[in-house]
Amino acid sequence: MLGFRIAKRDKSLRARVGELILPEGRVETPVFMTVGTNATVKGLTTQQIEDTESKIVLGNTYHLFLKPGTQIIKKFEGLKNYMKWDHLMLTDSGGFQVFSLPKKKIEDEGVIFKHPETGEEIHFTPELSIQIQEILGADMIMAFDECLPYPVDYKYAEKSIDRTTQWAKRCQKTLINKKQALFGIVQGSIFEDLRKRSAEDLVKLDFEAYAIGGVSVGEGHELMMKVIEMTEPFLPYDKPRYLMGVGLPEDIIGAVERGMDMFDCVIPTRYARSGTLFNRTGRMRIDHRKYRADAYPIDTKCNCYTCQNYSRSYIHHLVKSNEILGTVLATIHNLYFYQDLMKEIRFAILENRFTRFKNEFLNNHLSKND
Amino acid sequence: MLGFRIAKRDKSLRARVGELILPEGRVETPVFMTVGTNATVKGLTTQQIEDTESKIVLGNTYHLFLKPGTQIIKKFEGLKNYMKWDHLMLTDSGGFQVFSLPKKKIEDEGVIFKHPETGEEIHFTPELSIQIQEILGADMIMAFDECLPYPVDYKYAEKSIDRTTQWAKRCQKTLINKKQALFGIVQGSIFEDLRKRSAEDLVKLDFEAYAIGGVSVGEGHELMMKVIEMTEPFLPYDKPRYLMGVGLPEDIIGAVERGMDMFDCVIPTRYARSGTLFNRTGRMRIDHRKYRADAYPIDTKCNCYTCQNYSRSYIHHLVKSNEILGTVLATIHNLYFYQDLMKEIRFAILENRFTRFKNEFLNNHLSKND
Repeated sequence: MLGFRIAKRDKSLRARVGELILPEGRVETPVFMTVGTNATVKGLTTQQIEDTESKIVLGNTYHLFLKPGTQIIKKFEGLKNYMKWDHLMLTDSGGFQVFSLPKKKIEDEGVIFKHPETGEEIHFTPELSIQIQEILGADMIMAFDECLPYPVDYKYAEKSIDRTTQWAKRCQKTLINKKQALFGIVQGSIFEDLRKRSAEDLVKLDFEAYAIGGVSVGEGHELMMKVIEMTEPFLPYDKPRYLMGVGLPEDIIGAVERGMDMFDCVIPTRYARSGTLFNRTGRMRIDHRKYRADAYPIDTKCNCYTCQNYSRSYIHHLVKSNEILGTVLATIHNLYFYQDLMKEIRFAILENRFTRFKNEFLNNHLSKND
Repeated sequence: MLGFRIAKRDKSLRARVGELILPEGRVETPVFMTVGTNATVKGLTTQQIEDTESKIVLGNTYHLFLKPGTQIIKKFEGLKNYMKWDHLMLTDSGGFQVFSLPKKKIEDEGVIFKHPETGEEIHFTPELSIQIQEILGADMIMAFDECLPYPVDYKYAEKSIDRTTQWAKRCQKTLINKKQALFGIVQGSIFEDLRKRSAEDLVKLDFEAYAIGGVSVGEGHELMMKVIEMTEPFLPYDKPRYLMGVGLPEDIIGAVERGMDMFDCVIPTRYARSGTLFNRTGRMRIDHRKYRADAYPIDTKCNCYTCQNYSRSYIHHLVKSNEILGTVLATIHNLYFYQDLMKEIRFAILENRFTRFKNEFLNNHLSKND
């Protein structure tokens, strides 16, 4: 049930502008999805999330399975109703979180770990991941994959991608609600032949869209770009490609250039909470003394609620005083900045000036970091 | 520059409905003022404060003097501009905070204490309080008084009220900006003759409005009501009376009945942050297990943004997960609840049914506290 229409492709690059078409809404790509891990985009009301121009919110299967639990969300007929987000939603499979746990047992059947609060033993399987995601009821859902750490042994990675393919099949078989678009996730770490094999195996299963997983795990910008380059040629041109958990503006721009359509990352929200704010001329540490009496908005060219109303000095004061409003205003700004970046990216592709846009943006944005 | 028009007085009680008329706005009384101690109503944007129907925000001289400091706020031409509150504002004198400090030296000249961060010795005087409040630029400002603890020795209290009167005179002499309405503060602890004397001494100085201070310091509801009863007869009928730092709904209702017009308190915001929510049928501890799957809004009769959009279950989840949004939504609700209460109080007085309203409200509100 996921349509994808490509409106424009850059002449010399793989960058493209498209549209995701889902039963409950449409959205232009390249798109940045806002992370709402715990049934909340930290600090923001629904109205404020909308005001950041976010079109898709990402929910987190692992966290929501633990708290509030699927029984509660089932009663509310899905996560959208529960958190009052009436627009598009994607849920991840829980894979990334499960594989980040310090203690777990990985078997072909699934992953066994202990509930962090109750200590109860949980058998997390591809089937369970899909069953939870059906209850959460997002428009787009992810296959349960083994997210490999970086670095990882070639032999282990080789065995792992076959397991990920088997799990992907089991996810497809489990899914009943055909309104939910299921994404396959390519793994293979930084190994060219494994990325190729993983992509080809998944493409044979004919998913509605494909994700590149196992990136943004410490490999750095250059290797991340290489992983995209070694994977993208084996993904169908006419289906959306989602680069998971990425990233900084320069990562996103590099990935769009290499044919990626969808992104999500905690960076804008997490940076906001620690007082790092994005603007066109660099990243600001708003708690720095130099902003104490600065009457300008965070970014003089930004139209977000924060920049339209408040000064750097005021946000500096809030952040230095550990005031919640500092986090809220910073989060609103950073999310809007990301949505604005994606809009500029789309315009640049549509107007055949992506490379020029990229050079100008990066030149400005990386020039004056605090 | 403070006009006060009494629109209606209850036939058998001292309760009255009026209107504060200031150069920058008007507001109906009895009014509850929302506390914004640190240049922020914790967690709420200006838009959200407005949506709670708050008409007056209270700023805090002591806190703002320490951080961000008067130089910053002077640069922004006042606290309203700094925190983007374009409506009415009142600042307290700093007295309450200064006298709450564990170590301070009280002299007739003023109070000496150490800056909590820099250790610098600060001489806080009536003159300094007014100078700071002129920079903050609120519509209504408070005389610097000695806020007595409870309980306190009669002899000390007697000496103290004379000092408070002397300080009040010095505040009047210091104030240059006549657009700012200066309130005198009656002290005298729970001693009838001292409250009378303090009120009479201050009334002779002809302030634009009068406050009752030194309440809500641990004396309890009954004594608080007695203090109002022993003070109110000596305050001019045609000037606003502000009961400082009060309180719970039952305190406010009791005080309105006894002729008070203005209130402020941290209770709605502080309770919100600890998960205690007000509704018509009682106070709820939203983190209680019984709300886990409760699909109702906090208060089924409430029109606030929180109750119009979110369930008890969702707010329970947010609060249990220490999510900022839980605090934000709870704060929005509690503040709106207070504004709604004041509106109901005003209507009840206007319609000659205050006593019936009081009995019904208290009967419902105190019936089912968690």
